Amino acid sequence: MSSKSLDFLTEALKRLPGVGPKSAQRMAFHLLQHDREGAAMLSRALYQAVDQVHHCAQCNTFTEAEVCDLCQDEARDRSLLCVVETPADQVMIEQTLTYKGLYFVLMGRLSPLDGIGPKDLHLDKLVGRSTDGEVREVVLATNFTNEGEATAHYISEMLKARGLAVSRLARGVPVGGELEYVDAGTIARAMLDRRSA
Amino acid sequence: MSSKSLDFLTEALKRLPGVGPKSAQRMAFHLLQHDREGAAMLSRALYQAVDQVHHCAQCNTFTEAEVCDLCQDEARDRSLLCVVETPADQVMIEQTLTYKGLYFVLMGRLSPLDGIGPKDLHLDKLVGRSTDGEVREVVLATNFTNEGEATAHYISEMLKARGLAVSRLARGVPVGGELEYVDAGTIARAMLDRRSA
Ligand SMILES: [Zn+2]
Ligand SMILES: [Zn+2]
Repeated sequence: MSSKSLDFLTEALKRLPGVGPKSAQRMAFHLLQHDREGAAMLSRALYQAVDQVHHCAQCNTFTEAEVCDLCQDEARDRSLLCVVETPADQVMIEQTLTYKGLYFVLMGRLSPLDGIGPKDLHLDKLVGRSTDGEVREVVLATNFTNEGEATAHYISEMLKARGLAVSRLARGVPVGGELEYVDAGTIARAMLDRRSA
Repeated sequence: MSSKSLDFLTEALKRLPGVGPKSAQRMAFHLLQHDREGAAMLSRALYQAVDQVHHCAQCNTFTEAEVCDLCQDEARDRSLLCVVETPADQVMIEQTLTYKGLYFVLMGRLSPLDGIGPKDLHLDKLVGRSTDGEVREVVLATNFTNEGEATAHYISEMLKARGLAVSRLARGVPVGGELEYVDAGTIARAMLDRRSA
């Protein structure tokens, strides 16, 4: 290629998940030929996100504050703690309007094949959060995939050993389904039917 | 979402071609959770490309210089000018090692349905380049799609009216095929068999 900056951009775009060499080249050409404003905006957005976004000290989700808005909301029920895999899953549960407690966002799931163990998920942080004296019940809302179920089982054993009440979303969610793609009504039902785990 | 920077990043990622809301969210989470170095690198690459990449004054391809390396190469045959749609097509032709002339990169094709006419392709720049006194033959190597063929036809008429010899890659390239996805051998054959247009 005739431009080092273009080569560098194509290489960098390949860091995005699901983007191969051909897609990266296509994206680079598109941005430079048709959307330089979009390219400049994406550059700023990436810089700002890397610079300012970190994890909430309480629930572990992405936030720019020390503690996120939801964790600071006095109207939430502090005796309930719902464990989800990702911020997207949390958004889905919020949309059902069936849950008024707080959250803990794992930012992943146990996945031995990918080398993701309990330490990588910072489960010690979850234990600390669950045993703060205010939490009475932990609702496990990991995905109903094999890895999500294994993660729920692991956390359940870990927290029950510390005397906590642990429940699991009812199996209204289709087996193999990922929360992010399930309709809010199904998740609402599963939340209401949650069972002791 | 709990972070404005994360929302901004997700919005900006949607500017990439082929990236919808779900993919953008997935990419944003992936970068912040697993590849902040990649995110910072992409931010720099975008900034640098927007800042430094422009069009070669002679061949119109992307370059950081006033005139690109290939156009400055004294070993190239200045009597031949090959017209391609994109820099990727130019790279494909270079890989065949069958062509030693210079290029003109349209950065697109005529596409009335998308509102892309002769002015948008800067065909006046191509006319100026073709009538510099050194160019003896213009080889049209636009894609063999409907739009590529129409573009070749339009340019052919335009340049022949100015007394230039105009040829077209032989139809060894499969009809409907895009150069970028054709093997180098086929393109080499089509280059050798190019016919008067
Ligand atoms: Zn929080
Ligand atoms: Zn050039």
